Amino acid sequence: MTGGPGPDPRRGAVAGPVTVGIDVGGTKILGLAVDGTGAVLAEAKAPTPRLLPPGSSGGPGGDAVIETVALVAERLIDALDAEAVPGATSAAVSAVGVGVPGMVDDAGILRFAPNLPGGEGLDVRGRLSKRLGNLSVVVDNDATCAVMGEWVYGAAAGATDAVVVTLGTGIGGGLVVNGRVARGALGFAGEIGHMVVDRSGPACPCGKRGCWERFASGSGLGRLAREAAHAGRLDDVLRRAGGDPESVRAEDVTTAAGAGDPAAQAVLEELGWWLALGLANLANILDPSVFVLGGGLVDALDLVIEPVRTAFDDLVEGRRGRPEVMIRLAALGERAGAVGAGLLARRDHRDRSGRPD
Amino acid sequence: MTGGPGPDPRRGAVAGPVTVGIDVGGTKILGLAVDGTGAVLAEAKAPTPRLLPPGSSGGPGGDAVIETVALVAERLIDALDAEAVPGATSAAVSAVGVGVPGMVDDAGILRFAPNLPGGEGLDVRGRLSKRLGNLSVVVDNDATCAVMGEWVYGAAAGATDAVVVTLGTGIGGGLVVNGRVARGALGFAGEIGHMVVDRSGPACPCGKRGCWERFASGSGLGRLAREAAHAGRLDDVLRRAGGDPESVRAEDVTTAAGAGDPAAQAVLEELGWWLALGLANLANILDPSVFVLGGGLVDALDLVIEPVRTAFDDLVEGRRGRPEVMIRLAALGERAGAVGAGLLARRDHRDRSGRPD
Repeated sequence: MTGGPGPDPRRGAVAGPVTVGIDVGGTKILGLAVDGTGAVLAEAKAPTPRLLPPGSSGGPGGDAVIETVALVAERLIDALDAEAVPGATSAAVSAVGVGVPGMVDDAGILRFAPNLPGGEGLDVRGRLSKRLGNLSVVVDNDATCAVMGEWVYGAAAGATDAVVVTLGTGIGGGLVVNGRVARGALGFAGEIGHMVVDRSGPACPCGKRGCWERFASGSGLGRLAREAAHAGRLDDVLRRAGGDPESVRAEDVTTAAGAGDPAAQAVLEELGWWLALGLANLANILDPSVFVLGGGLVDALDLVIEPVRTAFDDLVEGRRGRPEVMIRLAALGERAGAVGAGLLARRDHRDRSGRPD
Repeated sequence: MTGGPGPDPRRGAVAGPVTVGIDVGGTKILGLAVDGTGAVLAEAKAPTPRLLPPGSSGGPGGDAVIETVALVAERLIDALDAEAVPGATSAAVSAVGVGVPGMVDDAGILRFAPNLPGGEGLDVRGRLSKRLGNLSVVVDNDATCAVMGEWVYGAAAGATDAVVVTLGTGIGGGLVVNGRVARGALGFAGEIGHMVVDRSGPACPCGKRGCWERFASGSGLGRLAREAAHAGRLDDVLRRAGGDPESVRAEDVTTAAGAGDPAAQAVLEELGWWLALGLANLANILDPSVFVLGGGLVDALDLVIEPVRTAFDDLVEGRRGRPEVMIRLAALGERAGAVGAGLLARRDHRDRSGRPD
């Protein structure tokens, strides 16, 4: 566990309630103490404990996660004391918000967690609150936390309708509709990566063919790159990767594109077209005023953002009568989930969709 | 213009405020007087006046529409007087709601109306209110009105998250998210028919390829039927259509399927698979608890609704951890838009998304 950066140098004093936001990822747990304006007062992180094999349910694996989250929270509370942020002592921490990769019910129990094996059935809210001396705890889905962060303090600030698209190994998403975060009937909303866009496309681990994330994600980029390498359209990258088209990875393309290799940039533009296709589908369905693109691919996307915008304008319905839809890069980066979890902690557990006051 | 059916025989007296709801369609204008429980007190209809050629803007064509809508409203108000519904005299009509095929701004002006040429720029709210002696008028998109009707009094009643899918020549849609009708940033939300599901599929008049409505609509069914006829899989239907595969229409298939022709039923099941694919995409994005299927294809869909449900369960993400998503046929039929317009009339013009009290 590493210590935090301490008080934000831009701020002289803490404004509004201080909360702790913790984002439980597949590999690491990131915690932030944030004040009522979204300013980060302290940061702490720890590796996510290895949990049980798939099919197991909330036993010792769950215990380890709860304990690690509690330690991260305590570390943040200690940091506030130790670093003497004016007004931000541990007594000022009013609540803890936690984002977890899975479906969370209204009682704060993890109900479906394919990416956190052994976590299903875990009473995150109840057990963490008890462990932290009955501090108020709010639990929600990690993507929902990220959209809350970007919506309140990031690239979607001020929008009544927005879509946050997280481009990593797959594609995750979060929706703001009618000025509230949309969780869906069961907390499953935002599984945008498994929208089928090419019925006869490549097989997806989910069992279908042609899901959007087969094209417009990190793994999609790897696949597009290997296709290009096989077709002789990516010779420099192929040479650097050792000559075997099957060994070409997404990172080889983003690195080469960043260094100015036109062939690599062309593959990135191909990914950009598929990205635009899915964004246009989402625009037709939801009519957001802004898309926010986040996740590990974002740095590479910077190179093709203009082609993405052009392709989107070409693909969206009724462009003539529709003002421009903004396509922006995420502002909070990997902190979005933890900032959003801290925001959610400022609300009652049962009303997690609105903008905190 | 035809007269209405008079008071609903199930009801002895009128409950709550009486409003007039009018659905302006491409071919006809349907008006209903509804009471505060959604009961229909009177009905009137008239053909939609022919408007101007595409590219023109709100002149004489607009005048004719306003006048016809006003006449339908007056007919309903007269019917309430004449038929002596207890408590439902014309004085009891508190407002008029109008659903129009296009994008309507907050002032009730039609801003984008590809299916109502000459209607763009028309101040529907202002002119209709003036024409009706300053009666309060609320104007919204027709699909939004239909989703409001099905949500409050129809097959989506009680759902916080629902999608209404209207299967006609194309596919229209309406969304309920977080217990409110979702209109999007600009009133464009719900253009679900132009979600691309097969990137290399047939060309769509919108300019793209493989839009959902190329497969799962009335025109999609015609196309699937002609493909089947060309491939020798629809011989009885082909014979009855005169022997030319290109002359086979959607209606030929629905009629034959209804009469028990297994080849026609197989084509309908193919349409059903595509329908399920699009519903699964929408479920992944929005996580509704219920889909409501309406529009002209609904009677035929009754024959394949079980295959649709089976295919949907196969295609939706995380079915294992997800309670069943309901797929229901619309309850209000062609009246949904007018009932919903009547409901919208009970609200302030600027707050058109919530459920009327």
